[in-house]
Amino acid sequence: MNVQDFLISPGEACKRSGPHDKIVLSSRVRLARNLKGAPFPGHAKKAERVKSLDVLLPAVSGLPQLAPKPFAEPLDKLSAQDKQILVERHLISREHAAKGAGSGLVLNAEESFCIMVNEEDHLRMQALRPGLQLKQAWLALDGLDSALQERVEFAFHTQYGYLTACPTNLGTGIRVSAMLHLPGLVLAEQINQIIQAVNKLGLAVRGLYGEGTEALGNIFQVSNQQTLGESESEIVERLNKVLLQVIEHEENARLSQIEKKPKVLLNHIGRAYGILAHAHSISSKETMNLLSLLRLGVDLNLFADLPKALVDELFLLSQPAHLQLRVPDKLDAEQRDSLRADMLRERLRSVQPPDAGKLGAKAE
Amino acid sequence: MNVQDFLISPGEACKRSGPHDKIVLSSRVRLARNLKGAPFPGHAKKAERVKSLDVLLPAVSGLPQLAPKPFAEPLDKLSAQDKQILVERHLISREHAAKGAGSGLVLNAEESFCIMVNEEDHLRMQALRPGLQLKQAWLALDGLDSALQERVEFAFHTQYGYLTACPTNLGTGIRVSAMLHLPGLVLAEQINQIIQAVNKLGLAVRGLYGEGTEALGNIFQVSNQQTLGESESEIVERLNKVLLQVIEHEENARLSQIEKKPKVLLNHIGRAYGILAHAHSISSKETMNLLSLLRLGVDLNLFADLPKALVDELFLLSQPAHLQLRVPDKLDAEQRDSLRADMLRERLRSVQPPDAGKLGAKAE
Repeated sequence: MNVQDFLISPGEACKRSGPHDKIVLSSRVRLARNLKGAPFPGHAKKAERVKSLDVLLPAVSGLPQLAPKPFAEPLDKLSAQDKQILVERHLISREHAAKGAGSGLVLNAEESFCIMVNEEDHLRMQALRPGLQLKQAWLALDGLDSALQERVEFAFHTQYGYLTACPTNLGTGIRVSAMLHLPGLVLAEQINQIIQAVNKLGLAVRGLYGEGTEALGNIFQVSNQQTLGESESEIVERLNKVLLQVIEHEENARLSQIEKKPKVLLNHIGRAYGILAHAHSISSKETMNLLSLLRLGVDLNLFADLPKALVDELFLLSQPAHLQLRVPDKLDAEQRDSLRADMLRERLRSVQPPDAGKLGAKAE
Repeated sequence: MNVQDFLISPGEACKRSGPHDKIVLSSRVRLARNLKGAPFPGHAKKAERVKSLDVLLPAVSGLPQLAPKPFAEPLDKLSAQDKQILVERHLISREHAAKGAGSGLVLNAEESFCIMVNEEDHLRMQALRPGLQLKQAWLALDGLDSALQERVEFAFHTQYGYLTACPTNLGTGIRVSAMLHLPGLVLAEQINQIIQAVNKLGLAVRGLYGEGTEALGNIFQVSNQQTLGESESEIVERLNKVLLQVIEHEENARLSQIEKKPKVLLNHIGRAYGILAHAHSISSKETMNLLSLLRLGVDLNLFADLPKALVDELFLLSQPAHLQLRVPDKLDAEQRDSLRADMLRERLRSVQPPDAGKLGAKAE
């Protein structure tokens, strides 16, 4: 089965909404788990990884939480393009996309659960939600985890908790994260201050594709660093509190930009629209940064007929593998930049430019 | 009389056409002349300058070539804004705009003759034509000069020719120049080569507002440097020949860009359109450079409904003094950038974006 036939279309996927989704694009909780008595994937021979996969793939895919019939396949059944699509949808990690035989993937139809088998750990189970829904994601994932523990035995130490390949995940094995869109803080040049403050609280701030990646499109991932010494609920609760504060800072930054520099803001957004709607070649990086301004314009009610879902869809469709889906022949970077521009012009053709008269009219 | 009431409107002025006007915006010939027995303006006391002006203003304005009734006023009758408008229309020099009592201006209704009184010399007489019309401009100016010599006596030396304040103008006192739009050579990165070659032929290449100014909007002034040892006709003929070669180089550069990098060209022009039509703040410099790309797009038939005259009009209307005309209160730089963007959005609102399908279809 082709994973793309299984995936929700970008257009539909981007219509999903959630609390605070002007600023919080998505919430994610993941648990790292390992089979008792089996070597960690990084230390296992291929035969051992295949053996773990053979245990886990049916065990996970049979869970009632993933019904009806989830997508469950070893990664060697997926093309490189399919895996890249999954990375661009933020369903699997770049590291997992590089894996083949002996690793696998289980994904439910709603795309609210995605489980990587034999990534760094035997299991990286993720629950995903649009907007700020960390608690909901955690409860859902906790239920999945409990159900799975009735079927397989995990490596667990009474003092340390769940054992993981990397000690940074030891204990709860939990990583709670949210993807934030923070153009206001970037424009107000307060973003570094906020990142430092968040870091001091023991939380990590990363770019769009996780560790070591750039914050393209003013999108930042905030997540917990510690997995020991606190319960899962406490970790979720603590991150949630910090995120609510970041949201407030972002809202204030936007309001202050509207009050103090409305023309500057409008100029940024108008130019972003002008370039996206009329360029004939555009890089992924420039696209993300301009789409970020368009999304901000939508949040500020500057566009009469531009749905937020369309902007979010364009974020997805502008990625390399999603562009490659449109044509049979392998694209080089130059062709990709050209095709990206063609797609953006086409999709924005009938969208009216931002309306200066609406600035500040109904902000936030 | 207000000079603005006298001037042809920018829209009408830009509808004038001439040979090679895809590349040659305008042709100009000027003659430097000085009254016999009167000190040069830079060495004259105010009373002496006023005396020269009192002789020259009626003598010049009564010439049949300037009929019907030309605009003829001492500069102290003009506001700073009026003078700036005249500079932006390329009718008077920046230096002349800085002058007041004792200096003057004569301009005919067609704006084909413009005479500065007491600039650096007693007379700087100019004939102006759209497109490449150096010979026509020279013949017209020569006629004006001859007619004037029947009314006043010029400082003339049988060996050196016409005497001028600066020795670089001695002899014929002629300066022949053309304003060239050379985006093709700039995009092809051949412009410096061409400038060097033109310089080696003893010609000067300058920016949009003459000596020491930047080549904004890919617009360059080419003019003769020498005024001694050649007849006026020879100087005109020589410049004309060189310009025809520059035109050919520019045409080739455009064709080669279309053949080799059509998408790059279209991308430049599409983005220029997108920004000009949607920015809410834009500097004069950025505007000129983007309008240059729009003009190139018009020359390449990429626009279905954008007349070249509109682009040329926007070049004019984007200048500071022309913008100031629109509002009663004195604009600061920020307000000007905002008003410029408002004007551009308004004027480009109904213009369709460049059409990729037309690229190369009917180039030149």
